[in-house]
Amino acid sequence: MAETPIRIGILGCADIARKVSRAITLSPNTTIHAIGSRSIEKAKRYASDNSYSSTVKIYGSYEQVLDDQDVDAVYIPLPTSLHVEWVVLAAQKKKHVLLEKPVAINTSEFDKIIDACESNGVQLMDGTMWMHHPRTQKMREFLDDSNRFGQLKSVHSIFTFCANPDFLENDIRVKPDLDALGALGDLGWYCTRSILWTANYELPKSVTAFRGPIFNKAGVILACGACFQWEDGKVATFHCSFLSNLTMDLTAVGTFGTLHVNDFVVPFEEKSATYNSATKSWFTELVTGWNPRPSDNIVTTDLPQEALMVREFARLVRSIKDSNSKPDSKWPTISRKTQLVLDAVKASIDKGFEPVEVVS
Amino acid sequence: MAETPIRIGILGCADIARKVSRAITLSPNTTIHAIGSRSIEKAKRYASDNSYSSTVKIYGSYEQVLDDQDVDAVYIPLPTSLHVEWVVLAAQKKKHVLLEKPVAINTSEFDKIIDACESNGVQLMDGTMWMHHPRTQKMREFLDDSNRFGQLKSVHSIFTFCANPDFLENDIRVKPDLDALGALGDLGWYCTRSILWTANYELPKSVTAFRGPIFNKAGVILACGACFQWEDGKVATFHCSFLSNLTMDLTAVGTFGTLHVNDFVVPFEEKSATYNSATKSWFTELVTGWNPRPSDNIVTTDLPQEALMVREFARLVRSIKDSNSKPDSKWPTISRKTQLVLDAVKASIDKGFEPVEVVS
Repeated sequence: MAETPIRIGILGCADIARKVSRAITLSPNTTIHAIGSRSIEKAKRYASDNSYSSTVKIYGSYEQVLDDQDVDAVYIPLPTSLHVEWVVLAAQKKKHVLLEKPVAINTSEFDKIIDACESNGVQLMDGTMWMHHPRTQKMREFLDDSNRFGQLKSVHSIFTFCANPDFLENDIRVKPDLDALGALGDLGWYCTRSILWTANYELPKSVTAFRGPIFNKAGVILACGACFQWEDGKVATFHCSFLSNLTMDLTAVGTFGTLHVNDFVVPFEEKSATYNSATKSWFTELVTGWNPRPSDNIVTTDLPQEALMVREFARLVRSIKDSNSKPDSKWPTISRKTQLVLDAVKASIDKGFEPVEVVS
Repeated sequence: MAETPIRIGILGCADIARKVSRAITLSPNTTIHAIGSRSIEKAKRYASDNSYSSTVKIYGSYEQVLDDQDVDAVYIPLPTSLHVEWVVLAAQKKKHVLLEKPVAINTSEFDKIIDACESNGVQLMDGTMWMHHPRTQKMREFLDDSNRFGQLKSVHSIFTFCANPDFLENDIRVKPDLDALGALGDLGWYCTRSILWTANYELPKSVTAFRGPIFNKAGVILACGACFQWEDGKVATFHCSFLSNLTMDLTAVGTFGTLHVNDFVVPFEEKSATYNSATKSWFTELVTGWNPRPSDNIVTTDLPQEALMVREFARLVRSIKDSNSKPDSKWPTISRKTQLVLDAVKASIDKGFEPVEVVS
């Protein structure tokens, strides 16, 4: 007998929630139970535009979603500045939380979120979809292979897209009162996560922001970058920007191997994704070519990565509900480390590009 | 009637000279006329091992090559610390000079080289082979296309290889008295050149070295990196290392386009090379994929890039000889800018990773 699906309520009518709504529908262990917006008209239109089932409850406030006894968990794609308020409320109402990134304005706010979730026994997971693609697991195996990859030496990540004038004027990600971290919080989140993931979540000792970040008139970051240093000599760099063509690169170089992926956040295609790997690359005689050459590796998936994310979140929620166990701390820990490093990058920018120690 | 080939003398029996010897033979307008080593036995063995024609003159000193009236030009792959001495002597003997990179220990020494070449009317070109591949021209056209690429926003370059223990102990590139710039001079030269090339040789305003460079016991750089800033907001990063798997990436991101090449210094294959380009990349509906996707572009070549380099050098020499014209200043200018930026990176490392202005 199939398990009862985890019933999810959605707070707000964010654009990204359209993608996650589809993921909730695709995931075999979840269902959309409710959506709430400050405007019930907006919520109705959104439900209709996105072909929600007629059984989905439509509410004219976020509170009503949280008060619905049939909602097991909520998906929160609200502006970052609202995260602490609504996650804490949701946790108090015993709702498990799938939270959009960046998880908070800073780690101190995120710690309030973690505390609320822990003390109320609810699962917390952030919405970093690519973590759940089977390609990510395959790349992990490559990086962890001491013969094929060896010791990690450097990581380089880029995430940029060329925002249109409307975005640069009106999107929440350029508003200091909504997503104050701008491109750093949005795109830099993915870069930072990818670097930490590559380094098996070992925190860097210090981070130094690159000179020359670009701000909008309100002081929100539109483009920036940083270099990370680890105790053992590993280094990483990232660059993120709202002002350049869509690019999402992750490059990891080890003593024996190299990993390249050029669509790490959102794969070019839904059902099939590629990463390029090289092991013990060297030159041909007279350095006229390479032998061996790097090779492409294809990983297929039936479900898109966002549905796999939702499925994993619901699996954890189900396990808590069924066995009355404690939430899994793996995901909040990873979220917190990512936020901690973002905070350090921001601090380095604020301190005139001085190195900032990353203190857990 | 075919022109008389330019007769080239080679100073020293460097490993890289084997590749360039083949290139001189492949190039239709050049011939190997002489090789000199401090040990005539070594020179004889080298000539034999590399199947030199029996007509090639074998000398037991560099001076004898320079004194050979039939030598039109010399190829100098000597350790960097010897460049200024031997290029100045060669120029005084009216020999045109193809010079291995890095061109000098610093720009002040390179200026002596430039002065000697200019005042003696001889052509100077550095040995950066990839500049001469037809792929490079195709990539240039892409970068210069305001519709396909737009305005350059960031460049990211990596060149690493995993040197074996013998290299790390004995190679001239880890010896402070021979190639004092270590990995920065060897690999960082290519990264810096690729960044300047991408930026159409506009010098950055300042460079800031990354913290955490790695030195050997003698104080020679084994791994380092830096960030460059331009007045208009462009940024670039590079990372180079003797301690990581062979990797050579150039990534350029413009407002409308992205360029990726993963073998920019030495193409994977001799006769065919690929670059990946993307224009106005964006997401599919619901951000479940990309449309359009980046695409691969293949460029073929009959002659390998090093033979095209030799051919271009000889073409310039021929033009000077035939028309008594002045040497072309394009190549020395590019070499000097590359050296200038290397100097600034080194200065930034020496100054504790402070930003260093690049002053022409």
